[in-house]
Amino acid sequence: MPLGQRAGDKSESRYCGVETEYHDDMPHLLTHSLSGGFDFIVAPLVDPSYRPSSMRNDVGSCSVLPVAASDLVLSPSQWSSHVVGKISSWIDLDSDNEEVRLGSEITLKQEIAWASHLSLQACILPPPRQAACGNYARCVNQILQGTSNMQLWLRIPLEKSESMEDCSADANSDLPAGGMFDSWEWWNSFRLLCEHHSQLSVALDILSSLPSNNSIGRWFGEPVRAAFVHTNSFLTNARGYPCLSKRHQKLITGFFNHSIQIVISGNVRHNISGDIIEALPANNDESHEVTPSRHSLKPYLDYVAYIYQRMDPLPEQERFELGYRDFLQSPLQPLMDNLEAQTYETFEKDIVKYTQCYFQLQYQRAVSKALIDRVPDENASTAIMVLMVVGAGRGPLVRASLQAAEETGRKLKVYAVEKNPNAVITLHSLVKLEGWEGIVTIISSDMRCWNAPEKADILVSELLGSFGDNELSPECLDGAQRFLKPDGISIPSSYTSFIQPVTATKLYNDVKSHKDLAHFETAYVVKLHRIARLAPSQPVFTFAHPEYSKKGNERYKKLLFEIPPDSGSALVHGFAGYFDATLYKDVHLGIEPSMATPNMFSWFPIFFPLRKPLYVPKGSLVEVHFWRCTASTKVWYEWCVTSPSTSPIHNSNGRSYWVGL
Amino acid sequence: MPLGQRAGDKSESRYCGVETEYHDDMPHLLTHSLSGGFDFIVAPLVDPSYRPSSMRNDVGSCSVLPVAASDLVLSPSQWSSHVVGKISSWIDLDSDNEEVRLGSEITLKQEIAWASHLSLQACILPPPRQAACGNYARCVNQILQGTSNMQLWLRIPLEKSESMEDCSADANSDLPAGGMFDSWEWWNSFRLLCEHHSQLSVALDILSSLPSNNSIGRWFGEPVRAAFVHTNSFLTNARGYPCLSKRHQKLITGFFNHSIQIVISGNVRHNISGDIIEALPANNDESHEVTPSRHSLKPYLDYVAYIYQRMDPLPEQERFELGYRDFLQSPLQPLMDNLEAQTYETFEKDIVKYTQCYFQLQYQRAVSKALIDRVPDENASTAIMVLMVVGAGRGPLVRASLQAAEETGRKLKVYAVEKNPNAVITLHSLVKLEGWEGIVTIISSDMRCWNAPEKADILVSELLGSFGDNELSPECLDGAQRFLKPDGISIPSSYTSFIQPVTATKLYNDVKSHKDLAHFETAYVVKLHRIARLAPSQPVFTFAHPEYSKKGNERYKKLLFEIPPDSGSALVHGFAGYFDATLYKDVHLGIEPSMATPNMFSWFPIFFPLRKPLYVPKGSLVEVHFWRCTASTKVWYEWCVTSPSTSPIHNSNGRSYWVGL
Repeated sequence: MPLGQRAGDKSESRYCGVETEYHDDMPHLLTHSLSGGFDFIVAPLVDPSYRPSSMRNDVGSCSVLPVAASDLVLSPSQWSSHVVGKISSWIDLDSDNEEVRLGSEITLKQEIAWASHLSLQACILPPPRQAACGNYARCVNQILQGTSNMQLWLRIPLEKSESMEDCSADANSDLPAGGMFDSWEWWNSFRLLCEHHSQLSVALDILSSLPSNNSIGRWFGEPVRAAFVHTNSFLTNARGYPCLSKRHQKLITGFFNHSIQIVISGNVRHNISGDIIEALPANNDESHEVTPSRHSLKPYLDYVAYIYQRMDPLPEQERFELGYRDFLQSPLQPLMDNLEAQTYETFEKDIVKYTQCYFQLQYQRAVSKALIDRVPDENASTAIMVLMVVGAGRGPLVRASLQAAEETGRKLKVYAVEKNPNAVITLHSLVKLEGWEGIVTIISSDMRCWNAPEKADILVSELLGSFGDNELSPECLDGAQRFLKPDGISIPSSYTSFIQPVTATKLYNDVKSHKDLAHFETAYVVKLHRIARLAPSQPVFTFAHPEYSKKGNERYKKLLFEIPPDSGSALVHGFAGYFDATLYKDVHLGIEPSMATPNMFSWFPIFFPLRKPLYVPKGSLVEVHFWRCTASTKVWYEWCVTSPSTSPIHNSNGRSYWVGL
Repeated sequence: MPLGQRAGDKSESRYCGVETEYHDDMPHLLTHSLSGGFDFIVAPLVDPSYRPSSMRNDVGSCSVLPVAASDLVLSPSQWSSHVVGKISSWIDLDSDNEEVRLGSEITLKQEIAWASHLSLQACILPPPRQAACGNYARCVNQILQGTSNMQLWLRIPLEKSESMEDCSADANSDLPAGGMFDSWEWWNSFRLLCEHHSQLSVALDILSSLPSNNSIGRWFGEPVRAAFVHTNSFLTNARGYPCLSKRHQKLITGFFNHSIQIVISGNVRHNISGDIIEALPANNDESHEVTPSRHSLKPYLDYVAYIYQRMDPLPEQERFELGYRDFLQSPLQPLMDNLEAQTYETFEKDIVKYTQCYFQLQYQRAVSKALIDRVPDENASTAIMVLMVVGAGRGPLVRASLQAAEETGRKLKVYAVEKNPNAVITLHSLVKLEGWEGIVTIISSDMRCWNAPEKADILVSELLGSFGDNELSPECLDGAQRFLKPDGISIPSSYTSFIQPVTATKLYNDVKSHKDLAHFETAYVVKLHRIARLAPSQPVFTFAHPEYSKKGNERYKKLLFEIPPDSGSALVHGFAGYFDATLYKDVHLGIEPSMATPNMFSWFPIFFPLRKPLYVPKGSLVEVHFWRCTASTKVWYEWCVTSPSTSPIHNSNGRSYWVGL
């Protein structure tokens, strides 16, 4: 039974599980948990006292694996939908004792094989016993090579501490002993050994104390599938019911937002008066009629459901963009190809509803301010400003300009220059429909070669890509400024690209799945969601217009990012890119997160991947180089990192990714 | 004119060059240098005072590049054989001054294009100005993508110091200013950015003071093509002639042994009485009849030639193995395939000459000692020992055993077991030829399934690969020990594999050239030459025979290597592997460098590559994991590193490389 209804939320995090002990009556265990309101159980599949023959004295007896239940007691769909297997937690593949090590390997492989046979969707792997978990990773990696469907979730405590003093010594908690500790390092080492295998994910164990927010933030770029919330991390409210600290609540909300399922774990710790019922009849108790007994962990589940139900509904725009989350798209080639009507449709159908108002309004504001600056009130009725919209598309900037003229009482003569003949047809219809024939002249031409009959006071364009200059606005406006008056105004007057390092396992794996170099040397437009932003973004390239120096449009920028020390170490899969444009004076438009303008659906961020994820030890600086290179027929970026380690230069000579002129 | 004749040496290091100043009469410059005894010149191609138009005031004048000489003044083969181009040393692609940076990029590209047009074999790139040379590397990398033949040699001073105090401040030396410095780091960063491009190499500048031997050792695994020896690093001998310090001499000898060419650089510093002649007539001096004037740097060349000629001739075995140096071979699959006669031929033709004597002698020694231990003198004439040679091949171990029997006066009954039916034919001929019919019984069978008619006292085998167990000796002997008496002896009684981390650019590039994963997950047999051994080797897996425990033949070993701190940082391309076998008691046989037995041509070392070279900062430990895995039909290795950074696990499940059972 899902935690609740939340408008627009279709993610799996509505489902909540419960961790159970070993029980040999699986149907009863499942029925009890489902009737208690849980959606699935995380259950051991094999008797925890089992050891393989190599570890027992009775060598040679070829006994049957003592499984919790025959595969026949549940239907395949019950196994698959409601049971997550829990691998025996005694296994220790990095034990110094060779017998334990080899026995553990046999057991792990046997249990996974059994779980596969049951068609489970996932199995939980016990946490590594120590940072050095090379043999455990090698064995899991071997298993992953031969497993086609089942997910393996490595259990990792959400823990980062400078010393172990603040970690309560729970002998059964499977936590490591030792000094400074960051469990992320274990996960990182494990998944590097297993090469980011897409079926290897994380199940976090939430403890009663939480590490710093920055260090928790890293996990949102990792493939976390589930979070175990132990009953002993719950507090008790005034009425004796379980509740969570504010920070825990925020964390759980973050999990819900990132499709991470909650699993309640542990024994009842809250004595709710008159409400205590035995968890489950003991094993081998013959008398278990399935009474509709209340599940002892229900109060914890209720509290988690309460957090879920309390969340705001997804905003309409977010809901629309759900399908785009973390989905890699190749950037447009607006100069080489004519945008298909489909593209305009996708953009405009929803832009009209969510975005265009704002986008258009900012242009209107900018044009208004420019008009007022350029035409004093006393000349308003006589002076006619020549305004050219270059790249008019289907007309939004023409409309914004005319509205600005109306708003400010200035007079305009508008040229709408558009190279796509199909868009020109639409423009003609629009002009006719709106009765703009006397004001707007439509020019079907590439702005770079148009021979303008007069010079413009104001040049309005929107040629910006997610990374600002990546759709070649600089080259286009260099061409168009020929017909701008010497003191004429360009809207936008400048734009700047920004990048920041991110952890983005999902994106990295999607790029990697193409198995070639070219995809690792391509920038993607993507609605970033399951990522961790590791440091504030920094400006990369700035272009101002008009530009009369002979500077050219090649650029080189070296940036140094500092990941906050309390984050701990991190893995950088690439760089998220944004832009911010100054349309005119204080009117700006952009998607850089810290100063983004609202509802900018037209532009998702851009993502520059790294061919090999960059491990950044705690406190290290990330040094990045970005180049914008130009040749006669194309423009491209090259990028690399030189600290904390050196990567190859990506996309040399634009071999993999370029924008045609 | 080569430096001299050295028996067996066919490497390019016989040729010595001279670095020249800019001179606009290239034919004269070349004739003067060649007649002076040099084989080639390293010469600027463009007037060093030239700056591209973007850096001059006379913008717009599209002037011709002021080259040292038209391509027509020398024949293409003269250009290609005798001239190495020297790129203008004023360029600085990482200057903070954008004008200098852009002008440098234009100049670099122009000069390389000119050198390409001249069909030069190589150009020298000036050293980076600073550790942060990202833009220089980006530009060179772009050039490399479009250059098909010419080599680019990045000039790097051979220098490593904790502080700059010991580095004489020479304003023209292009050396960096600053504190702790290791020029290898510059090279490493540059080549990582350029992704180990095979046309990017190093030209070392030898200074008057040399860094530690360990740090110099690293360079022998790098693609060093030339070494500039400056006249000011020469000392003066009693007669006033130039000479070099002992350490410099040793270094030069090392260069000769690794095909690194010497280039003499700088002005005359030694006043050799009555012998001083002007180096070259000044530019634009009309009166240069080519007099056979003695070249002013001849004394330096003579000294270098003296060092060359003084070297010992290449040993006969080395000469034979020259063609195998750094050439990757796939390991044998002796169990799955029958060795072709060709393989035996290659082995034995030369083994007879160089190796077999020793190899056979060690087996003879081992069998002798075993026979003496097993049969007291008083029983020598009566006791008949049953000796089985398993994997008898074409008979060398049969012969060694019979010679041992003769030597010790013991009596033998020999079974020669061989699965290759073709080798069996040879064995029959041998037995007939030698008259061994009464002593030797030939068994045409796989030792793992042969049903022996009696049990053996001594089991003799040579099933070892370069890595000891990699040709499945353990599995074979497990099968064969069925017919060994309980107190019987196995020769060898044990064997151990060893590995050590190495820098091996050549091997890495050869593996990479296949452009697939499988080649990076394969071990190769290779005569290692252009490598740097970064730390002493350590034992990996040991197998002892007979083995009656149920231990199995899977193994796991974790090793920690410490690279000597005075080496500085290093790049590990993979691991060199060896074996050492104890035949019987103190009689051993092996190729582990520190205890290798002589003339072991049969076994070249093995090389386990890493998919991505591992950067090891100075003082860091290298943690390596090796697994020997077995399944019903095959045996394979997996390997990975976990410190200083974590690699993927190589060859999971033997997906790329395995040995069939």
